[in-house]
Amino acid sequence: MAYFTKNYHPPGTSPGTLTARETEATPPRFHLIGYSDGQLTELQLDNPAACKEYLTHSTSTWIHITGQVQPALLEALGTAFGLHPLALEDVLNSGQRPKVDEYDEQLFITLAVPVGSSDAIEVEQLSLFLGSNYLISLYPGDDSLLEPIRKRLRSHGERLSTQKADYLLYAVIDLVVDMGFPLLEAFGTTIEALEDRLLESPNRQTLGQIHTIRRELLQLRRMIWPQREVINHLLHDDQPLIQHTTHIYLRDCYDHNIQIMDLLENYRDMASSMLDVYLSSVSNRLSDTMRVLTLIATIFMPLTFVAGVYGMNFGNNSHSPWAMPELSWYYGYPMAWGIMVTIAVVMLVFFKRKGWLQRNSDINDR
Amino acid sequence: MAYFTKNYHPPGTSPGTLTARETEATPPRFHLIGYSDGQLTELQLDNPAACKEYLTHSTSTWIHITGQVQPALLEALGTAFGLHPLALEDVLNSGQRPKVDEYDEQLFITLAVPVGSSDAIEVEQLSLFLGSNYLISLYPGDDSLLEPIRKRLRSHGERLSTQKADYLLYAVIDLVVDMGFPLLEAFGTTIEALEDRLLESPNRQTLGQIHTIRRELLQLRRMIWPQREVINHLLHDDQPLIQHTTHIYLRDCYDHNIQIMDLLENYRDMASSMLDVYLSSVSNRLSDTMRVLTLIATIFMPLTFVAGVYGMNFGNNSHSPWAMPELSWYYGYPMAWGIMVTIAVVMLVFFKRKGWLQRNSDINDR
Amino acid sequence: MAYFTKNYHPPGTSPGTLTARETEATPPRFHLIGYSDGQLTELQLDNPAACKEYLTHSTSTWIHITGQVQPALLEALGTAFGLHPLALEDVLNSGQRPKVDEYDEQLFITLAVPVGSSDAIEVEQLSLFLGSNYLISLYPGDDSLLEPIRKRLRSHGERLSTQKADYLLYAVIDLVVDMGFPLLEAFGTTIEALEDRLLESPNRQTLGQIHTIRRELLQLRRMIWPQREVINHLLHDDQPLIQHTTHIYLRDCYDHNIQIMDLLENYRDMASSMLDVYLSSVSNRLSDTMRVLTLIATIFMPLTFVAGVYGMNFGNNSHSPWAMPELSWYYGYPMAWGIMVTIAVVMLVFFKRKGWLQRNSDINDR
Amino acid sequence: MAYFTKNYHPPGTSPGTLTARETEATPPRFHLIGYSDGQLTELQLDNPAACKEYLTHSTSTWIHITGQVQPALLEALGTAFGLHPLALEDVLNSGQRPKVDEYDEQLFITLAVPVGSSDAIEVEQLSLFLGSNYLISLYPGDDSLLEPIRKRLRSHGERLSTQKADYLLYAVIDLVVDMGFPLLEAFGTTIEALEDRLLESPNRQTLGQIHTIRRELLQLRRMIWPQREVINHLLHDDQPLIQHTTHIYLRDCYDHNIQIMDLLENYRDMASSMLDVYLSSVSNRLSDTMRVLTLIATIFMPLTFVAGVYGMNFGNNSHSPWAMPELSWYYGYPMAWGIMVTIAVVMLVFFKRKGWLQRNSDINDR
Amino acid sequence: MAYFTKNYHPPGTSPGTLTARETEATPPRFHLIGYSDGQLTELQLDNPAACKEYLTHSTSTWIHITGQVQPALLEALGTAFGLHPLALEDVLNSGQRPKVDEYDEQLFITLAVPVGSSDAIEVEQLSLFLGSNYLISLYPGDDSLLEPIRKRLRSHGERLSTQKADYLLYAVIDLVVDMGFPLLEAFGTTIEALEDRLLESPNRQTLGQIHTIRRELLQLRRMIWPQREVINHLLHDDQPLIQHTTHIYLRDCYDHNIQIMDLLENYRDMASSMLDVYLSSVSNRLSDTMRVLTLIATIFMPLTFVAGVYGMNFGNNSHSPWAMPELSWYYGYPMAWGIMVTIAVVMLVFFKRKGWLQRNSDINDR
Repeated sequence: MAYFTKNYHPPGTSPGTLTARETEATPPRFHLIGYSDGQLTELQLDNPAACKEYLTHSTSTWIHITGQVQPALLEALGTAFGLHPLALEDVLNSGQRPKVDEYDEQLFITLAVPVGSSDAIEVEQLSLFLGSNYLISLYPGDDSLLEPIRKRLRSHGERLSTQKADYLLYAVIDLVVDMGFPLLEAFGTTIEALEDRLLESPNRQTLGQIHTIRRELLQLRRMIWPQREVINHLLHDDQPLIQHTTHIYLRDCYDHNIQIMDLLENYRDMASSMLDVYLSSVSNRLSDTMRVLTLIATIFMPLTFVAGVYGMNFGNNSHSPWAMPELSWYYGYPMAWGIMVTIAVVMLVFFKRKGWLQRNSDINDR
Repeated sequence: MAYFTKNYHPPGTSPGTLTARETEATPPRFHLIGYSDGQLTELQLDNPAACKEYLTHSTSTWIHITGQVQPALLEALGTAFGLHPLALEDVLNSGQRPKVDEYDEQLFITLAVPVGSSDAIEVEQLSLFLGSNYLISLYPGDDSLLEPIRKRLRSHGERLSTQKADYLLYAVIDLVVDMGFPLLEAFGTTIEALEDRLLESPNRQTLGQIHTIRRELLQLRRMIWPQREVINHLLHDDQPLIQHTTHIYLRDCYDHNIQIMDLLENYRDMASSMLDVYLSSVSNRLSDTMRVLTLIATIFMPLTFVAGVYGMNFGNNSHSPWAMPELSWYYGYPMAWGIMVTIAVVMLVFFKRKGWLQRNSDINDR
Repeated sequence: MAYFTKNYHPPGTSPGTLTARETEATPPRFHLIGYSDGQLTELQLDNPAACKEYLTHSTSTWIHITGQVQPALLEALGTAFGLHPLALEDVLNSGQRPKVDEYDEQLFITLAVPVGSSDAIEVEQLSLFLGSNYLISLYPGDDSLLEPIRKRLRSHGERLSTQKADYLLYAVIDLVVDMGFPLLEAFGTTIEALEDRLLESPNRQTLGQIHTIRRELLQLRRMIWPQREVINHLLHDDQPLIQHTTHIYLRDCYDHNIQIMDLLENYRDMASSMLDVYLSSVSNRLSDTMRVLTLIATIFMPLTFVAGVYGMNFGNNSHSPWAMPELSWYYGYPMAWGIMVTIAVVMLVFFKRKGWLQRNSDINDR
Repeated sequence: MAYFTKNYHPPGTSPGTLTARETEATPPRFHLIGYSDGQLTELQLDNPAACKEYLTHSTSTWIHITGQVQPALLEALGTAFGLHPLALEDVLNSGQRPKVDEYDEQLFITLAVPVGSSDAIEVEQLSLFLGSNYLISLYPGDDSLLEPIRKRLRSHGERLSTQKADYLLYAVIDLVVDMGFPLLEAFGTTIEALEDRLLESPNRQTLGQIHTIRRELLQLRRMIWPQREVINHLLHDDQPLIQHTTHIYLRDCYDHNIQIMDLLENYRDMASSMLDVYLSSVSNRLSDTMRVLTLIATIFMPLTFVAGVYGMNFGNNSHSPWAMPELSWYYGYPMAWGIMVTIAVVMLVFFKRKGWLQRNSDINDR
Repeated sequence: MAYFTKNYHPPGTSPGTLTARETEATPPRFHLIGYSDGQLTELQLDNPAACKEYLTHSTSTWIHITGQVQPALLEALGTAFGLHPLALEDVLNSGQRPKVDEYDEQLFITLAVPVGSSDAIEVEQLSLFLGSNYLISLYPGDDSLLEPIRKRLRSHGERLSTQKADYLLYAVIDLVVDMGFPLLEAFGTTIEALEDRLLESPNRQTLGQIHTIRRELLQLRRMIWPQREVINHLLHDDQPLIQHTTHIYLRDCYDHNIQIMDLLENYRDMASSMLDVYLSSVSNRLSDTMRVLTLIATIFMPLTFVAGVYGMNFGNNSHSPWAMPELSWYYGYPMAWGIMVTIAVVMLVFFKRKGWLQRNSDINDR
């Protein structure tokens, strides 16, 4: 996920200006579902005004618009339902921080929908308008996101189909919030795998993965944290559009959001700790390497020196008794080997005592 | 303990859905204890409806259900006692953040019970329903957890057996909170042992242990912190189900929870510091190793060079007076040794002055 | 941007003292725009008193003064509009923390305008006086900053030209706040580029860049954070000068400021993490270098020792059977090579097993 | 000081249970001081009931009990003065977080008394019961702690002896809080000494000391922080037992506690910074060591190579003009020395230019 | 500045005890300035009682006492003006945290005056008593601190000389707060200089300087932070001694204090970051050094080995065709050089490819 994902107008643009976004996206599709106790109607309309007219036919109506909505269509929607231009601007300028805006006859809510796996998370914006007897939802992605709710509406005996639009709003928020659970479960698995590798065989790739995890957790947090305020806002303020019976459900949803935030903070703390552990692990390995080098150098340098001494040519041309008499001793050569073996053994014993013959990074030497 | 321990439904599932969890667990057992001033009845029932009927027989009734409860049984319990579906869902979807939910006639409370030693902590969920004259407790583990409370109920003269269900609730919460003390005592011992090893002989295993301690403290904190809010909620709100005389006891319990939190935060701070100390210790050891290497190299490289010089063959084939005349000097060989010994001594004096002959990691050189 | 950018008087100076600042700057220019529903007048005046007189001609008047204002001129402005000396002092002593000061008949607001790119940000102070029917804005830089607003005033059908001075104030604040979006987008790109370089080829320049980014984000934060309070102050207090209809727009502006703050905090967190990653990367490379050194030394030191042994001159002058008989063996020389090749192969196999022949910083060895 | 210093009962124990602690401690001693304007009576009683009876003889009575109090005695005290079992439990289960508990007729206060020097701090618990006309203090240590207050009571003209028990309580709290000043002064001296050693000659012992300081500051903080709340509680709540004239003194005491907390936080911050400085210092020294090694190796390796070249035996057996003709040159040997000296000089100039001949850790090379 | 700068009495000392401090300091001097609209009287008195008597002669009187005040004099002052013993104790026990104490007829205020440059800051305590028509200020240092205010009192047309004592109090606080600006400007310059050195040529001295800066900023913060509360206390509470017209000035002063705090926090953040950058820089240089070492070793070790091989004496004594036949080849010696040059070139090309011939710490290689 890129760091900066917000669409915005050039500074100084008039508020409420609607600008078309990249249009290679899917064309918009309207799904209208009207329901009044037990009775359900599903329509595929493509005209905001027609949607507006339908409202009188059912107790509650859900208008779900997927794909990329063009400014003109959005303006028509705004005109039909009396939506505020600032809210419409926020629908197009996606990448919003989740929030609730209260207007005279509607609540405007934006949520952040995490899409993709823990490797590459993207966040899509779900925009919701709640009126007294309707809910309009706009989502740039495909149709499958809210499919579970549609299924519940269609099935008999479900509480959802007998409730008003505010309960439908709860169902949508609940679904978006609960999408955090599988995501965080995946993150947990990834972090546990990283931790194992971290102590056993850390490499540069591990470092990159830790950094990426931190980055993704940070960005996810930026999206999920304000959702807590959104639900709180719906709960505590004197909202005429939210019935009191829905409160107990929203509070459950609020609890779920808190649990997700708690986990996120935990993960972030552990990811920070992992960076420190990584650095320590690399230092440990460096220390091991250096111990091997020191061992080899400390043993072979004196040996090579001894060999060098007896490679000197003092004995060649001179017959002085001081001119390397060892060279002509009967046991001179074995003596040289004796000196060298003694040096090597002394050094090895010294290192053994220091405990240097054992890797300090060895995880098996408990 | 795994990072992610929450059971959850797929996003979009209808609220209040009850799903069976892994069933290889112990079958549920019902313990019903009814008590009214001094009189105590213990029954083994397995029928929620029968439990409900019993309520009229004593002033207070405690229904304790251990083992794995199946959805059907839980639903029967819900129907008999009028428990809210959302609360029942939370009983099965264990791994909750401790919380209090207020329903019309009950309080629903979940607590986190730490199980196991400081090496491998697991957290089990204890679910509690407090009604006006009963307490229902559900615990997936075995029967021994609340045994101390049963013993106190049976013993005469105990305040517990003369009080109502809210005091029983306090006794349960107090037991769960106080389980933190032996746990933290064990952690304290572990941390002190780690600190000693940290400065004397840090190795990769120490690093892993520090990371694990941080992780466990973090996860424990996530469970214990909200318990503070749970007790606070019981204390400060206008709770009809909690008598005023119980407040002083709950406040004591609240104090204990704060003390545990304080210790946890202390431990976490020290665990962070230990990571830094570890890194410094490894650096210290690396520095020691390098000093040995430098010492050896700095002494033997010049010596080997001198030996190499007198191993050159200029004296062999030429009779120029410039052709290594040292080789034919009477004291040439002792002179060569003199040069080499002088170099070695000068180097050693130099290092002595620099203070390099002493380990900087030596803890005894105070 | 320098750390300390505030102009100040020597301690103990009388409050409200106006001191001329460096005068090589552009001379002041006055732009007066009066507008009442649909009608627009633009004047170039250079006399505060004349500006004051003009106020009666339109519903709302905007006096925009760019360039460096001299104390005398400022005092004349203060006298004409009844501005408080403390506010006038703050106009000259630029480098203010953004703030709102309430005086009897005006609001005095200072904002921080970020100028320049993400490489070299400067902050200029925009000072605003809001009266009941006028807005005075003072900006030391050039004229182009508020040009977009002038354009909107001139265009028909724009909401701006039909509103009062408080909406104009909103438009100015909105423009300044929204200048954060392109700036943070640039920062995001810079940070992403740095992250890539960080793992692949970190060098000292990367380090300097990370430090600079942290510094700039910190200074930016110091300017943007209090702007939140400024807007909040305008929103929540009982401000007679701000109409209620403007609130919904200011709240949108407040949201934008929060989004910018959120991003800034994210960026700061990532910049901190990057310093840790940098240190780990350098350690990784050091570790790689040392592995190569150890490899070479461990292979060639024993070999050189063997060669040194057979360079000893024991065989020259003595005919003892112990005097290096290998030298006169028929296959003596191939045997020496055999020993050396064996040592080299054993060492290589040993390193292969240890996994040392592979760089641990190699990002391709996934 | 051990990490875990709290005495506790096994989880599930009935609240208010009194358990004897390690009994090798000093036996309890009772000091009763009764005083009414100017008149002072001192008695050595060992009977709680007799103490209670005495209360009517003076305006104010102070019962100070030192040494180890047994459960039976404590129970007798509780019965005589109507003390709550939970408070009595807290007297024995020492290691409390400082706190105030309000009971019907008493205030129960626990304070943490720091004992020992900055090297090895222990914390003892002082328990206080304030009634309308008495103060009971229990302290497990020896008699000297509150001696200064006894002296002030005995001296004429002291405000203390003319006041009621609440002022005596203030005097005790003031003494305990002010014990922080000499302690923190000692810590300040220790930290300054550590800082000096840190930059000049850091070794492993320094590392241990920094870690210990952090640990002690953290534990001290855990004891001193809640004392702030204790005094605040006495000040702000509607306490019938604390006279309004005592408030100004308690507020002074509160100020002192804040100052001590401020210093503690400062010290903790500096101790954290010292860990970072330590790591940097060790790295600096490693870097110095490596520079020496590199210097030596870079100079002597090429020299040894040159010597090795002229130690080759090509000239011995062959008479080819290509067979090391240098060996038979007239100035061959001086030329070899010339090459070697040139290499050494070039290397030294190179290093001089790089600035490597100077230690980067040299504190004198400003 | 030492860590611990507070004067204190031994714990248990009676509150309000006045103890003489080190007396080598300057003797006290009294400056009395009485002023009522336009009229100014300056007197040099040395008698508190005479000062008290003077009060009736002017609307407002300022008594400024510099130098070291002895307990006897202070007591006389206390008696004459009815000052509280606790406040007098705080005048002598300097090193207070800045604070406001409200007594019946006075406000007692202590401020921290930073003295000295950014290299070596000391903090002196300024004690202020504000009565209804007088201000008493006590300052242990010399007379020049408040000279600017005296000058403003003497000059005609200054607002100060026409106001009451509360405005004089504001002027003093404003002066003390504004002393932070030049101090922080100096700190900013120091930090910028350090940053430059940090990346170019970090050495041990740089490390010490960063640590010192952190320490000084921390101590400064401890003094400046509570000044915010002091001003806030004067502003928000219902202070009879502070006129409402002074509020706007105190609020300006409060703003300045906030700006100084903001800068301090920024500086502290950057100083923390600098420690990390320092460590990375040292690692970078270590890495460079090691690369040079590895380069030299990797090139010369194989070369020396080759030279060593042909220094073996197999060819001397034996006439086996396997006994180093290379030695007697016609082009044997050039061949040996050929092998050695080939090895060197291959190594150099290898390092060139790895990018190791370039310093990674080279700041010019952008």
